[in-house]
Amino acid sequence: MDENTKDYFSKDRMNFFSDGIFAILMTILVLELKVPQIQDESSFAELWKGLVKEFPKLFGWLISFFALSVIWVNHYRLCKQFKVIDHTILWLNTLLLMFTAFIPFPTALIGDYPNNQLSIILYGFPMICITAIFPIMRLYAIREGNIFESIVPHRKIKIAYFWCPASYALGVCLSFIHVYLAYIIFLVLPIVNMYPRKLSMGGCSFEK
Amino acid sequence: MDENTKDYFSKDRMNFFSDGIFAILMTILVLELKVPQIQDESSFAELWKGLVKEFPKLFGWLISFFALSVIWVNHYRLCKQFKVIDHTILWLNTLLLMFTAFIPFPTALIGDYPNNQLSIILYGFPMICITAIFPIMRLYAIREGNIFESIVPHRKIKIAYFWCPASYALGVCLSFIHVYLAYIIFLVLPIVNMYPRKLSMGGCSFEK
Amino acid sequence: MDENTKDYFSKDRMNFFSDGIFAILMTILVLELKVPQIQDESSFAELWKGLVKEFPKLFGWLISFFALSVIWVNHYRLCKQFKVIDHTILWLNTLLLMFTAFIPFPTALIGDYPNNQLSIILYGFPMICITAIFPIMRLYAIREGNIFESIVPHRKIKIAYFWCPASYALGVCLSFIHVYLAYIIFLVLPIVNMYPRKLSMGGCSFEK
Amino acid sequence: MDENTKDYFSKDRMNFFSDGIFAILMTILVLELKVPQIQDESSFAELWKGLVKEFPKLFGWLISFFALSVIWVNHYRLCKQFKVIDHTILWLNTLLLMFTAFIPFPTALIGDYPNNQLSIILYGFPMICITAIFPIMRLYAIREGNIFESIVPHRKIKIAYFWCPASYALGVCLSFIHVYLAYIIFLVLPIVNMYPRKLSMGGCSFEK
Repeated sequence: MDENTKDYFSKDRMNFFSDGIFAILMTILVLELKVPQIQDESSFAELWKGLVKEFPKLFGWLISFFALSVIWVNHYRLCKQFKVIDHTILWLNTLLLMFTAFIPFPTALIGDYPNNQLSIILYGFPMICITAIFPIMRLYAIREGNIFESIVPHRKIKIAYFWCPASYALGVCLSFIHVYLAYIIFLVLPIVNMYPRKLSMGGCSFEK
Repeated sequence: MDENTKDYFSKDRMNFFSDGIFAILMTILVLELKVPQIQDESSFAELWKGLVKEFPKLFGWLISFFALSVIWVNHYRLCKQFKVIDHTILWLNTLLLMFTAFIPFPTALIGDYPNNQLSIILYGFPMICITAIFPIMRLYAIREGNIFESIVPHRKIKIAYFWCPASYALGVCLSFIHVYLAYIIFLVLPIVNMYPRKLSMGGCSFEK
Repeated sequence: MDENTKDYFSKDRMNFFSDGIFAILMTILVLELKVPQIQDESSFAELWKGLVKEFPKLFGWLISFFALSVIWVNHYRLCKQFKVIDHTILWLNTLLLMFTAFIPFPTALIGDYPNNQLSIILYGFPMICITAIFPIMRLYAIREGNIFESIVPHRKIKIAYFWCPASYALGVCLSFIHVYLAYIIFLVLPIVNMYPRKLSMGGCSFEK
Repeated sequence: MDENTKDYFSKDRMNFFSDGIFAILMTILVLELKVPQIQDESSFAELWKGLVKEFPKLFGWLISFFALSVIWVNHYRLCKQFKVIDHTILWLNTLLLMFTAFIPFPTALIGDYPNNQLSIILYGFPMICITAIFPIMRLYAIREGNIFESIVPHRKIKIAYFWCPASYALGVCLSFIHVYLAYIIFLVLPIVNMYPRKLSMGGCSFEK
């Protein structure tokens, strides 16, 4: 069987597939925002009051949308450096997609129960996994040697790669002091990760 | 890290990703149309009466579908002129996608509460933002100089670029006189923007 | 503005976008199938009875899935003959997508009220429009002359192009005798249109 | 009509379309996970109790997500060997997509009624069909001769191709002893099929 002799997966197909999943997720998140039930259908004040109660859902939508867009950009940045996609990269990527596809559920949880610590833990969980899989993919690719386009000189700073999952974990821990601290971190992290940095610590952020 | 030295994003990936989000949005809008509950399951008249009540939802679906298709076409028209995608363009585009991905929620709002002014304001809000981001992207690209394929001679007419968000804002304002005036504008604007114009004011419409 | 001088749209983008919408529609149709509520959770018989009541929904899912897959294939067949995409083709295509994106709603209607003639009329309506837009696109492309890859010799048989919307219209009419007659036609039409035919009447089916 | 003379379908379009459907399915599965209703909104214990009841849904999500990702990979592996896509391959693929698009429904069934044998039978049914269509496509392509890129030397081992649908069928049968036996098989099968094997029986797994 010839697909065993050259067992590499198509990079384009994997990227396309991942992009598709990211796009769908960023879109279906909005289905969680529900129209409030009000009595007087033309009352501005009553609809406003109903929408204010939706604020946690809107906030959840916002931080998940930003997190997903940063994950998408960093996924692009990491994958464009790959020369080939072997089975380990393919299944690490699938694992990444699995945790990403899970995000709408904890997003709905924090929308409904924003003050419940369990919501925050369950929101942080896939985020920690996703942001940890990026450096794991990178470290695997470095170790294998033939995956990256060029041998990149970032062998030393392995622990620094994990500052992002560590930050999400910190957010979860801080929720034991006050849930708002977790939300601040969940909001700030994607923003911090938007621009690639030339920090010597490198390979930080969601991926880069 | 080599992605910092040449920090341009893939135009194809960004276009593909945006197209995906537009396609999904135009499709999931229909999920808002609910089958009416009727007693006599085979009664033509009763089902008709139930569906007539759905008319605002159908109207909302229609204007959002058309707006999204015009946004898609204009997004195509603007982006095909770009030579490179830098970080500012990438994140302006993400902001554009964020407001676009929000559309199903206010569409549901005007479907449920068509006579409520707050619904109209919340519907107009993402539309104003989206139609404003297009000329902002264009003006940024003109200023940067190296983003457009060729130096386009549209430097002068900067204010005219913003006639479309201004029209949406006008629609929102007119709703204070009568909500129907807003709906007429929301319906007419996408139709007006369907065909590219050679108007000297240029760069008008959702994007072009 | 250079996009006015060469105002053709990208065929690849339009195809990609249409394919995306077809794929999403064929997938979200399944969301209409609801798990029945039963008392004894492990009772085979009770769940079976609940599912039998779902049969109209399952049937609706089936005929819409097949219709959409035939629309997709015929869309491919028509569009691959196009050399360029001008504005008329682009907006005819958007109209086609609009009626296609509407399909989940009447599919839900016939799932809930299979014996209601209004459901059947509303199901037939987008199907008639879709299957009519295909020959309209073809006739427009023939008339324009520069749209088809090669001048195709199918100028004479213009009325025959419309047998498919006519068949859907017939199905709707037959529902006034018995609703089942309409369903038989709705089921048979996609199957008939699966294989391209060399019939001299040509250009039949959903598109070809 | 020139599309009859050379009636092959575009492999890229078919792959793209199938990938799109797989991506959407893997994403909308999560919509089945519902936020539990609790009284005390900030109670960790109550939310935990509510989520524990969701465990069958989470398990269903997990096995379907893995099954779909394996189907995607094996679909890629099979299709990349095809030189051309004729009508039989195209419609076998559509049939494959139909059963795949059905998966969210039985996944919801086993989530709601995990101890009901009918749920398990209905979950096994599309899986048996999907895993059977892969070897049917392969056998058809071998027989036709001009479909595979190169004549592959796997003519003898035809029955072995069907071990995967047979395993799913076995899982369904074992559910008559105990439902958990079926779930173990449904969980193990995708994992077993993740890595391509060089087993002489070849062409096993979901596809390969």
